[in-house]
Amino acid sequence: MLAELITIGDEILIGQIVDTNSAWMAQKLNLAGIKVKQISSVSDERQHILNALREASQRADIILITGGLGPTKDDITKKTLAEYFNVGLRTDQGALDNVKRIFSKYSSPMLETNLRQAEVLENCTTILNQNGTAPGMWIENKGKIYVSMPGVPFEMMYMMEELVIPKIKESFKLESIVHHTILTAGIGESLLADKISTVEDSLPENIGLAYLPKLGVVRLRLSGRGSDSESLKKEIAHYASRIVGLVDEFVVIEADLPLEKAILDTMSAKGLTLSTAESCTGGYIASLLTKHAGSSKVYLGGAVSYSNDLKTTMLSVSEETLYEYGAVSEETVLEMANGALANYKSDYSIAVSGIAGPDGGTEDKPVGTVWVAIAGKTKTISRKFQFGNKRAQNIERSAINALFLLHKLVKEEQA
Amino acid sequence: MLAELITIGDEILIGQIVDTNSAWMAQKLNLAGIKVKQISSVSDERQHILNALREASQRADIILITGGLGPTKDDITKKTLAEYFNVGLRTDQGALDNVKRIFSKYSSPMLETNLRQAEVLENCTTILNQNGTAPGMWIENKGKIYVSMPGVPFEMMYMMEELVIPKIKESFKLESIVHHTILTAGIGESLLADKISTVEDSLPENIGLAYLPKLGVVRLRLSGRGSDSESLKKEIAHYASRIVGLVDEFVVIEADLPLEKAILDTMSAKGLTLSTAESCTGGYIASLLTKHAGSSKVYLGGAVSYSNDLKTTMLSVSEETLYEYGAVSEETVLEMANGALANYKSDYSIAVSGIAGPDGGTEDKPVGTVWVAIAGKTKTISRKFQFGNKRAQNIERSAINALFLLHKLVKEEQA
Repeated sequence: MLAELITIGDEILIGQIVDTNSAWMAQKLNLAGIKVKQISSVSDERQHILNALREASQRADIILITGGLGPTKDDITKKTLAEYFNVGLRTDQGALDNVKRIFSKYSSPMLETNLRQAEVLENCTTILNQNGTAPGMWIENKGKIYVSMPGVPFEMMYMMEELVIPKIKESFKLESIVHHTILTAGIGESLLADKISTVEDSLPENIGLAYLPKLGVVRLRLSGRGSDSESLKKEIAHYASRIVGLVDEFVVIEADLPLEKAILDTMSAKGLTLSTAESCTGGYIASLLTKHAGSSKVYLGGAVSYSNDLKTTMLSVSEETLYEYGAVSEETVLEMANGALANYKSDYSIAVSGIAGPDGGTEDKPVGTVWVAIAGKTKTISRKFQFGNKRAQNIERSAINALFLLHKLVKEEQA
Repeated sequence: MLAELITIGDEILIGQIVDTNSAWMAQKLNLAGIKVKQISSVSDERQHILNALREASQRADIILITGGLGPTKDDITKKTLAEYFNVGLRTDQGALDNVKRIFSKYSSPMLETNLRQAEVLENCTTILNQNGTAPGMWIENKGKIYVSMPGVPFEMMYMMEELVIPKIKESFKLESIVHHTILTAGIGESLLADKISTVEDSLPENIGLAYLPKLGVVRLRLSGRGSDSESLKKEIAHYASRIVGLVDEFVVIEADLPLEKAILDTMSAKGLTLSTAESCTGGYIASLLTKHAGSSKVYLGGAVSYSNDLKTTMLSVSEETLYEYGAVSEETVLEMANGALANYKSDYSIAVSGIAGPDGGTEDKPVGTVWVAIAGKTKTISRKFQFGNKRAQNIERSAINALFLLHKLVKEEQA
């Protein structure tokens, strides 16, 4: 069962908005066992839309179309679909009642164009819009299913979850799809591939392995298809455990979570607390942690000690250490980690000091030199990294590597 | 001049990642005067990629392809392009040196698969990758231009900005396009449109006005096309000054800069320093500031006082205040701002305390309640915001609004 997504509207093509709808829809479809073959964003232009529909219908069984259903002149999806199917439009009573209900609720004046939003294709099943005026449409034509929905995310999401996905499941007997993600850190994609090549080479045809790298971490995703989801899960678990057996020291968690969320969950389960002492990462580690709901159970807070003075006043780094070894040194970062642990009374702390760049490097300490220290229950560890000369990457890599060191120390001490 | 973007890789089709590359590329291309006709995401599958290339080449003059250039087995872009153009591969010496340089720098063992990353199409001009091992490729074939780039955002971005866009501009004689951006904050899109409607209505046909809203800020972008860029610049400057005259109090800067960068520049020019005291934004404001090179001239550092204890120990908020008014209160946030100013010895400070959600709201203080205070030379100001129930948005809106309040106080005090 293959689907294609077509997004209609110039705002994506001029880069004004990022198309988050498609990723969300693709996730939901995959979970339901429907593979997405292609995602296309096309302009509000009749011929271009007609071509996109024709091409998609040659590749896929289900074509999901979003956007272009608004009341303004540039919204031409409906009349173009009517042309594509060679049918007329009819006013749908339910959709009309819905438009009237919404306008009366907001006491807005209703225009002729608003009433026309209740028009749908003659050959469609209307999908009522609980959150807006434009109805969705479900069309079956020559063995294919077409669904047209508004581009407004929460209007589309409601229709997909409540109506479209259930109706698709009802209409087809679908193959099961099972995904299993292994989050690794501290190892590059190629070396990882080399270490697990025996497992990769032995995968059966119905199971695929994808490498999803992102600065400092690589996600391994096993995806399988089959008729029986239980036996498929077991089969995938077997290959996952063989992979983990080969690269255990680099595995953070067997789940599709961000690194920092995996660590927060582990620490939360063990009742451990964390503080941070950040220089070159400038609050980035703190913000990674605190973007997750519930992070306050683990994360107490910390210092962004950008200036040397603040390293002394906030983290009790001695002036002698700063003078003798400099801010970017093992001595300083160890004192930062220990200072955070003592001053903020946490079980663990992360400290980072480095030269993010593009300026500030010296011969001894070029841009990209970063010291990380982790203070824990029994010891404080430190490690030097030598990254490149891109500021944003140095910050990101510093954060990911510091978090991975924290993960390893917690794992070791809490084993 | 039409372009198409093709994104190759299953991770977008299963919804694991959102395709942010395409929006970014579309923006850059539009700024250069190149219209994007279609954006397609296709799977790592030979025939599918071949079809996508064929279809795109029938519609566009320039086809930009990202993804599928990694060293692993699922990355098949290169060999599929070779098949499409019916050419072989050659090892590019520059690319090989680059791969070796990167591996020696990180002292990682280099594998056969890594060396093969230096292979490029016989018929291409190699685009060196400053940030990774996979080179980009520029191919001219039958009057069309094809560019293949890695899918890793910063690798692609560097190639686009430094090499691809300039080379496209060089290859075609493009009409002059002049853009002028006005960054506004503290006012919504509709109200802004209402206030400047007289100017918008009087724009000549060759000048367009775009509203680019993002949580808390709206960029107004005037874009003009013409043969003479100097007179075009003057014409656009005239309309820009008319717009600024109408909404001056909401204008941060007439440049396409992030809000925090505009503030850093202003404060840096005046020799002013800044510290932060963050609760619900959890280091996000600090990380926004420190991602910009040179921020250390202005930004000294600050506290991420996530727990109540740390509000007391780091920022000298009194226990009585926390007990009597709670962490999310005007009283607390004022003490946080004043504490940061005193403890971190800066000229200005930003303090934020709120309920980011999704939990932690009460009847009095529902999720989305956020207090911001700014301490300056002559006074400390505070303001309450009531945002919605989305955590990420609440953090972002809190940061943007706090930065805008800082901007206004600096402007007022330094006038």
